[in-house]
Parts: sequence; structure tokens; C-alpha cells
Amino acid sequence: MARQIITLTTDFGLADHFVGAMKGVILALAPGATIVDITHQIDAFEIAEAGFVIAQAAPWFPPRTVHVVVVDPGVGTSRRPILAEAAGQYFVAPDNGVLSMIYSRHPHRVRALTVEKYFLKTVSQTFHGRDVFAPVAAHLARGAAPSRLGRLIRDYMRLYYEKPVRTARRGWTGAILKVDRFGNLITNFAASDFPILESQPFQMTVGLRAVGRLAKNYAECFPGELFVIAGSSGYLEVSSSHTSAAKILGCGAGAPVELKLI
Amino acid sequence: MARQIITLTTDFGLADHFVGAMKGVILALAPGATIVDITHQIDAFEIAEAGFVIAQAAPWFPPRTVHVVVVDPGVGTSRRPILAEAAGQYFVAPDNGVLSMIYSRHPHRVRALTVEKYFLKTVSQTFHGRDVFAPVAAHLARGAAPSRLGRLIRDYMRLYYEKPVRTARRGWTGAILKVDRFGNLITNFAASDFPILESQPFQMTVGLRAVGRLAKNYAECFPGELFVIAGSSGYLEVSSSHTSAAKILGCGAGAPVELKLI
Amino acid sequence: MARQIITLTTDFGLADHFVGAMKGVILALAPGATIVDITHQIDAFEIAEAGFVIAQAAPWFPPRTVHVVVVDPGVGTSRRPILAEAAGQYFVAPDNGVLSMIYSRHPHRVRALTVEKYFLKTVSQTFHGRDVFAPVAAHLARGAAPSRLGRLIRDYMRLYYEKPVRTARRGWTGAILKVDRFGNLITNFAASDFPILESQPFQMTVGLRAVGRLAKNYAECFPGELFVIAGSSGYLEVSSSHTSAAKILGCGAGAPVELKLI
Repeated sequence: MARQIITLTTDFGLADHFVGAMKGVILALAPGATIVDITHQIDAFEIAEAGFVIAQAAPWFPPRTVHVVVVDPGVGTSRRPILAEAAGQYFVAPDNGVLSMIYSRHPHRVRALTVEKYFLKTVSQTFHGRDVFAPVAAHLARGAAPSRLGRLIRDYMRLYYEKPVRTARRGWTGAILKVDRFGNLITNFAASDFPILESQPFQMTVGLRAVGRLAKNYAECFPGELFVIAGSSGYLEVSSSHTSAAKILGCGAGAPVELKLI
Repeated sequence: MARQIITLTTDFGLADHFVGAMKGVILALAPGATIVDITHQIDAFEIAEAGFVIAQAAPWFPPRTVHVVVVDPGVGTSRRPILAEAAGQYFVAPDNGVLSMIYSRHPHRVRALTVEKYFLKTVSQTFHGRDVFAPVAAHLARGAAPSRLGRLIRDYMRLYYEKPVRTARRGWTGAILKVDRFGNLITNFAASDFPILESQPFQMTVGLRAVGRLAKNYAECFPGELFVIAGSSGYLEVSSSHTSAAKILGCGAGAPVELKLI
Repeated sequence: MARQIITLTTDFGLADHFVGAMKGVILALAPGATIVDITHQIDAFEIAEAGFVIAQAAPWFPPRTVHVVVVDPGVGTSRRPILAEAAGQYFVAPDNGVLSMIYSRHPHRVRALTVEKYFLKTVSQTFHGRDVFAPVAAHLARGAAPSRLGRLIRDYMRLYYEKPVRTARRGWTGAILKVDRFGNLITNFAASDFPILESQPFQMTVGLRAVGRLAKNYAECFPGELFVIAGSSGYLEVSSSHTSAAKILGCGAGAPVELKLI
């Protein structure tokens, strides 16, 4: 029988005991679970970055995987813990918009996690990853029915960081969602929404530079040349072969992106 | 049947082959084991930091978990490898005081690991994590009786970094145990030893600043305000909402902390 | 029954969704597999460093382990994906020389991975770790015969970064393969090729400094003293007790090393 998978996406880093404690809680409750780290290096409190990462990773996992996403600046306040069901998988997270990209892509149902017997007996003010989200994930992995964990809600929080805004007949304003390890700037322009760039001259402006080349792969460009490429994430990325586009442009997550057809 | 869990806490970092080699040794000997990384980012040779981290993570794991702690500046010298049994779990480590917090919290027994047939056939001078600690952990996970691994000893090393010292009728001197990912300064003042701070004005001095506020959660304070909070670790922490207290105070692990009731 | 092991060695880092996506693909196809991270922190595009790390880690794993090595500056070009069989294990990688150290140490067979039904249905231009290497590894772990994945080839790429060159009767020129977490400089001088250093005065020059001491362990040297030691990797390393030799010497991977018998 396939073992139940639980993934973790947090801003806890890897230098503390936080992630280890969450894994201990999970394995004590669900000894047969397989735990997979997506990342623990989301920038502290960066909800949109975490939302992008989990939306990129989740589709590759099998049905019934439980994804735990803990980027939680509001821990200890009245923000609710929630469980979303989407695409045959489970998502356990604080209700702060971190699952917005999941909501945009899939029909979904959201529950407020209110049944405290699925939490640890003592819930601290500062570490719900260990005390609330880890045990809920373990109970789901063991087969607890979502309906027992809390009632469906409609007023969950939703943020709109996924799409650029049309600002002119031939212009859009968007943003950088994430800078990856190689310095590629991942924009919120879905490649499939802009097939027109293949046939039409354009300028994509990030920082002080306008980029007008659409490349098919990294190797066809000169080292150091800036280009736009349809990344493996499905979004247009501003890249540079063998070097960091982020360094060339001096830009990071959240920076504005302008697209103009010319 | 639950699979046997082996956790790893080291200062090996994640960029080398060290951790991978340890996992290979473990899985070759105990193919059914589940390996959990607590952290590999203990500052090089920081015994007290490793002692704090394993004491924080271990309680959340189920009985019979084997915890391997390798922060080992004396590798290659005559310092002994040891096995401690405490709280129904196993702790495999060099005898350099790294398990002192475990000793303080639980009745325990300590053995010197002397039976070389439980090590790899060739033991290097520089990498006992792979050659001694990993194979011993794997044999324990497979069910080897502790008594076969070595005799009980009483002269194991114990360090006292866990508690502040009373230096006046209304004053204590302690230390920062760890700076976590968010810049919170975790002191060695156990929150349960100082309930008096809830009813009595106080000053906790770290670096050049005295902090007099005890907060219940991060959200009730202004961004940038320094406060003391009972952290999820059970210790008082000096924190600042949405920013790093460590940066504000310019302090790190080992820095002194003064508490005065006023 | 032992569970099938798949290891991962990449330059993807831990902050993105890349590693998580690869693990999802693997677990969707081979739910029973145990995935072990060797490292994801190879310096971007550093083929020799990745080659060293996998050659160090692989020998400790049991037979039939599948090692996936993805350091792949040529992704999207015509460089082939390959499968090497060596030492009873499998190595899945791009054909760019990253497996050269494995080839030097073991009889081996190499196949070009050409049978697309073992890839994901859609193969992106930029992320073969997820689309090609992960699914091939999962199919191998599930028992697919190597011969079904592609035909044997002889013209695979091989790099020679493993050994120093003899440049005089009593002199050799080599290189630093890797700087480890503790600042030890791992040279490409195999300790077993230079037993003569135990009986003969020598000078090993790295950066601006010549080192003439061969140590047996770290503890016998003064803090800050530079020495040569036979490291756990089997190579001579230039080290300094309780401090970083790399910092003292201002050198990193790729720096030249001169050895002279005197």
C-alpha cells in the first residue's frame, strides 16, 4: 500500500528545532507517513512567495497528499487555521491568503479547523506549526474525514497576486513572484496567456532595463544577455544565461514588471 | 508496524557529502529506518547550541527514537562515543557535554560505546559521524540491546549552560542559548521558573538595552518594539514583532543576560 | 523487504520548488521509494564539485541504490541524459562528465536514455530534473530493466579532474576539488598515492603559503596552524584546527596545488 505523504512548506529555516519538532509530532501520530520538505526557506512572512511555491510543487504529488503551509505572521491572533480540499489533495494552512493560487486553479472547499481534539493538548501562542498544523496533517494522513475537522466556510481570505493587470490596450503591469536560485526572475505573467509574444515585438521592463527577446532555451543566448523565457513554472521569466538576471537588474520579489506590445 | 526513527543533529552543513554518507551507512544497515534531519546547521563546534536544539526537538518524537548528535570538536582524540538512554529514547553522541540538557531533564543512563563490532570496519580519524555514530544508531534501530554496546559509566561530561545564576536577592545572570531564524534571542531563563514577571516590574538587559515588557503574543506589540515572551521552547525570549531582536541588540548566542526585579 | 533508495545531488538549492517537484514525481511513480538528499547546494553549474560529492557519498549506500545527479548547464540543448551502471548501483545524470569519478573507480556501462515513455509526457526545455531524471529514477526503483531505457554507448563524456599531473621528478600540480563546511581544502591528491609524505619532507603550496606538516588528527596541531591531513574522503586536505584553512589561504574550489618533495 502506498504510504501517505505529508509535505511541508514554511519560513522556519533549517537551523532551528522547529521543523524537527513538527516532524516528531507527525511521526508520533502517523508513524507510517512519508514527510517531504518542499522548502523551509520562504523569506520570513512572505505569503505570496509561499503561495507560489506550493502551487508549483503540489501538482506533481499523488492524490490525497497533505500539504502543510506555515507562513504565519498572525500566529497567536484570531486568524483561523484552515483546511482546503482541491485537486484531490489537502492543504493545511493559516487563513491568510497563502493558498490563493490553489484557489485560482482548482475548484475547492475550505474548512475552518475548529475541533481542538485534533490539535496537541496544549497549544502555544507562537508555534501553531507544531501544535495545530502538524497534528491536523497527521490525522488527515491517518484517514480522518475532513468533515470532522471543521465546518465549511466561505469567508476565507483570498489575495490576488497571481495575474498582471491590463493597464492599456497593449500594456500590462505585473510583478516578480520569486527569484529562484539561479537568479531567474519569475513574473506573474502566465506564458499561456501571452502566446502573442512569439509573433509580436514587445518590451518587458524590469528595473531600469527593457527586454525584447523571447528565447526557447538558455543555450541559444549569449552569456550575460537578458531574455524572456517560458519557465518550467508556466510563467514568463526574465533570465540570463550562466549568470543571475536578478543581480543584473537589481530586483527581487515584489518588483513591478511592465509589458508593452510594440 | 511503526518504522524505527533515527534523527540527525550535526554541524556538518548541507553542502557536503557528510550527511549523505551517514544516511547511506544507516540505510545499508537498517533499510527500514526513517531518517529525520533535525538540523545540520549548528554553528561549527557549538556544543551548547546543539544541546539546546536536541532538547527542544526530542520530546516530540515517539519512544525508542534514536537521536544522533554529532558536534564533535574532539574527533580523533580520546573523547569517548556514548549512548544515553533517557525518556524512553536513545541519544548517541560524543562525550563532550552536548547531552547535558537531556541529563538535566530526565533520569538517564549513559554507556561508553566500546564494542567495535558495532562500528564500521575501518574507523577514520576525522569522521566518526559516518564510522561510529551512524552504524551504532542503525544497530539500535534494528533492535541491538544497549547493554551489548558498552558498559554503564558515571564520569560522563556534563556542562551547565542551562540555567541562570542568582547573583543578588532580586537579580540573575544568564545567557543567550540561541538566536532563531526570526532573530528571537532565546535565553536560558525557563519561563516556568519566573512566573513572578507577570506580576512584578522587571528589567531584562541584553546588549545595551533593558527590556521591561512581558508580552503574551507577537501581535500585541508595535513593530520594532522589544519585549520578553515565553517562547514555544519554554524559555523566555527577547523578541520584536516583524523584525529581528538580534539585529536591534547586536547580540548572538553566548551573550550575557541580566534580570533584575524592580 | 528493503525499500528502494533514490538519492538526489543537484545545484537547485533548497529555497525553490524544484526539489519538491522532483520528489512529487518520484513518489507518484514509486510510492514505496525512500528519497535521500545528498546535497542541493552544489555551486551553480559546478560539474567537478558534484562529481566529487557523489563519488564520496555513493559507496556508503546499498546495492541497487539509484543516484540522481542534476548539475546541468546544458539543459535544453542536445546533451544526452544517461544511465550509468557501476558498483552495483545506478547513476542517472546528464552526459556532461559529472560521473567521471565514478567511471575512474569502477567498471561501468553507460546508456543513452532515449526511450521517452519513461519520461514525463511533456518535457520542458528547462527542467529535466523533474521531467526526465526523476521519472527515470522512479522507473528504475520500481524494477525497470536498464536495457529497456536505452542502448549502451561508448562516446559518453569524461573529464579528468581527479588526479594531479606529475610536472617534475619530485613535483606534481593538482587542484582543490572542494572546500567543505569547515574550510578544509580537499585536494585531488589521493592519500594512498602519496604514502611518501610520511617519511619525506615536502612542501604543498596553496595560494601564497607552503605547508610542510602532515598531521594525524586535528587535535595535535595548534589552533590556526596549517597542516596536511589524509581526510575522510581519501584525499589529502589542507586544514587548520578550529579555523578555516580556506579563509587563511583565500582559496576555493579550482585553485591550483603544487606538491614538491624536498
